[in-house]
Amino acid sequence: MITVDAGVEAYLDTTRDQRLESYLELLRIPSISALSEQAPDMHRAARWIADEMTRIGLEHAEVALTAGHPIVYGDYLHAPDAPTILVYCHYDVQPVDPIELWETAPFDPFVKDGRMVGRGSADDKGQLHMHLKAAEAMLATRGTLPLNLRYVFEGEEESTSAHLPGWLTDNRDRLGADAVVISDTGFFEGNIPAITTSLRGMLYTQIDVTGAPIDLHSGSFGGAVQNPANALARIITELKANDGTVRVPGFYDDVIPPTRQERFEISCLPFDEAAYQEIVGVPALVPGEPGFTLLECSAIRPTLDVNGIWGGFTGEGSKTIIPAHAHAKVSCRLVPDQDGEKLFIAFRDYVLSVAPKGVTVEVQNLGTAKPLRTDINNPVSKAAARALKATFGQDPVFIRSGGSIPVAPMFETLLGLPVVMLGFTNPDDNAHAPNETMVLLNYETGIRTITRLWDDLGTMSPLEARMGGTTA
Amino acid sequence: MITVDAGVEAYLDTTRDQRLESYLELLRIPSISALSEQAPDMHRAARWIADEMTRIGLEHAEVALTAGHPIVYGDYLHAPDAPTILVYCHYDVQPVDPIELWETAPFDPFVKDGRMVGRGSADDKGQLHMHLKAAEAMLATRGTLPLNLRYVFEGEEESTSAHLPGWLTDNRDRLGADAVVISDTGFFEGNIPAITTSLRGMLYTQIDVTGAPIDLHSGSFGGAVQNPANALARIITELKANDGTVRVPGFYDDVIPPTRQERFEISCLPFDEAAYQEIVGVPALVPGEPGFTLLECSAIRPTLDVNGIWGGFTGEGSKTIIPAHAHAKVSCRLVPDQDGEKLFIAFRDYVLSVAPKGVTVEVQNLGTAKPLRTDINNPVSKAAARALKATFGQDPVFIRSGGSIPVAPMFETLLGLPVVMLGFTNPDDNAHAPNETMVLLNYETGIRTITRLWDDLGTMSPLEARMGGTTA
Repeated sequence: MITVDAGVEAYLDTTRDQRLESYLELLRIPSISALSEQAPDMHRAARWIADEMTRIGLEHAEVALTAGHPIVYGDYLHAPDAPTILVYCHYDVQPVDPIELWETAPFDPFVKDGRMVGRGSADDKGQLHMHLKAAEAMLATRGTLPLNLRYVFEGEEESTSAHLPGWLTDNRDRLGADAVVISDTGFFEGNIPAITTSLRGMLYTQIDVTGAPIDLHSGSFGGAVQNPANALARIITELKANDGTVRVPGFYDDVIPPTRQERFEISCLPFDEAAYQEIVGVPALVPGEPGFTLLECSAIRPTLDVNGIWGGFTGEGSKTIIPAHAHAKVSCRLVPDQDGEKLFIAFRDYVLSVAPKGVTVEVQNLGTAKPLRTDINNPVSKAAARALKATFGQDPVFIRSGGSIPVAPMFETLLGLPVVMLGFTNPDDNAHAPNETMVLLNYETGIRTITRLWDDLGTMSPLEARMGGTTA
Repeated sequence: MITVDAGVEAYLDTTRDQRLESYLELLRIPSISALSEQAPDMHRAARWIADEMTRIGLEHAEVALTAGHPIVYGDYLHAPDAPTILVYCHYDVQPVDPIELWETAPFDPFVKDGRMVGRGSADDKGQLHMHLKAAEAMLATRGTLPLNLRYVFEGEEESTSAHLPGWLTDNRDRLGADAVVISDTGFFEGNIPAITTSLRGMLYTQIDVTGAPIDLHSGSFGGAVQNPANALARIITELKANDGTVRVPGFYDDVIPPTRQERFEISCLPFDEAAYQEIVGVPALVPGEPGFTLLECSAIRPTLDVNGIWGGFTGEGSKTIIPAHAHAKVSCRLVPDQDGEKLFIAFRDYVLSVAPKGVTVEVQNLGTAKPLRTDINNPVSKAAARALKATFGQDPVFIRSGGSIPVAPMFETLLGLPVVMLGFTNPDDNAHAPNETMVLLNYETGIRTITRLWDDLGTMSPLEARMGGTTA
């Protein structure tokens, strides 16, 4: 069994302060991909990462421009007999709204109670940084890496990865690898090490309901016109039955029902529903569909949620108007083999069919992502499990995530590569929420996990990494 | 028949420019009562009006402080044999949201195409200003007024008149009068002179739906928790049946059904539904309830409308969250004899009863107002009709307004005075909406109407003004 290299460990021990300082520096760049005014910060973050790659000894570091935000590429290709792994993380982060719920400034990160606090600390700059620091430690102590690595760090993951597929296709020839390791997932409830074996896909829409060109006096016009906000509420209500079932025709047609084995495996996960409810802080947990458990509903069944809703007067006090328009962002999490583009048509047609009279309704497709299932018997996945056990001291659980990584299925479809999702964030990381955190024990130990994984894979031939074979 | 006094007419003709300048000056003060940060502007507006009263020769001008915004009082009491009229207008205005739909700054008023454009130009600073200018013209040309006037100008009409009832009660002894003239209504469709004979009441609420303490990642938690925005949409949908009927139990119990005569009178109004739809700019008109005409639904039937809705991510692009909370402002227009306070209890209980599991729901009462019906055979009402005909050249129509003036019924209940609603705004004034306007022909002619009305009432004894009698 390969343990963490003593030299690497000593290096990591003595450089902890500099490493945290560098982590803080990266988090201070407000790289919110959804907001067009942040474009200069996106470039700044990309440049910072590329410079860091060069500094630690990676090669061909490049800020690759796209029609959207840049992609950062870098590699190390000096282990001709060893496998090549493509590492994917993303340097863009979620918007910070509702900003008033942050206890501190989102881009003024700091350490508190063993956690790094700040937007991106977990999702996903923290994990990107772990990969840089793992490579740095190995290169600094040995001058070489035991395998070949290609890093692809995206800047549009949080805004549905509009430009990465094109870039992957254009650069297919120079992206040869044996597998992809994605570090953008996390541990199971209770902070138990985990490898994620499936992701949900996504359909993200916006519904726009318009009545009169301007807000109307609710006294003069109340009773004479349809109210766009009431109409929007009715449309949203029609989207789901009282029991949570999505009512869009054909929504479940392509869902592959879970096998008995899959349901059994999920039921074996050490899940404490009461503790979970306590952490989430809701009056009651509400499984999304009848006939499925909570874990099934939140990971292997599709969902439909309003992500935001707005219209009319939202200020202090009262204003007696009929809003001119009302809007909602509505997204679905999809499971194999649902197709977002196909479902968008069904969704749009259904919304228009249930729209009340007297308003104009439009439905926009703001982005889709395909669902993904991975193979836990893949040699890289097995090596990742060994690395987690060797560093965190316990076998990982295999979990199915409710989240989406738009690009993850594309590595399979566009590059033909198996995907392993090895992520390190704590389940209570507040990803996408105010006061995002990363448990520093996960961060520090996870860096060791990565070096351990590289050393393990470095003992294999490319063929063994692809097909299985001797393992240490 | 009493016509407009030639001296008054000459004075008004020669002072038109100064009058417009003064009108603009009053509109420039952003007296939004709903916003606490505007309190200094409320005082500034009140002071401006009181100073103007003193300047033109009214007496006892006073900025009366309350626990909310001040009330401006002033009087002229030197016609011992003539009636006393209490004039009510308000100097507060609606908020300006959505500010982005204003073509110009709301408080930078200007004249365009024969209209004054700016917040408050119609509702209600414009009409308040007409009363000041009518009194000014009479006092400047004669040194006296033909009757006694008490002006009560409120600063909280647009935020449910929290403090005026108390002030009226406290000052009942010095508010003796024979009738109240309220100028806060307008003309009928097509800009036909009108006297308003009923107002709807109001119940204004806010529904607050809370799930988790923070926004949740919709991938990790979608399918495991109730979504507050979906829950809010369902609650709103449950408030009304598909045909528009309000489903709150007991909502219609106290509604006095319109008589056959009332429905006949409404059906005789010169209402062009196609032209109305064109002006409002909606894809279709939607009567609020089955079995009633559009004019009935918008004036003599109660309504329920969402005035504003908000929650979650409302920015550019996509953010995949389950909102921590979602909110709606929901108000009802009420008709005799519905009682807002009583209905609030029913409304709140019903909302809580239809709230989905897994969220916490609270319902706030943000204010109520009683509905009002007036008597068109009142001598002051008849005199107002004569004054309109004499100045606008046509008989007014008697209309029932869908709007609310919270204090209007209180003049009856607290002071025992009959109310006459003589208002001058054009129906397309955009009151409560962006780009509010007042047709200057209505403004200028209406000032003449007021002077004509005062001269007419000045020929009556107080008893005649109350009970009817000789009319010119």
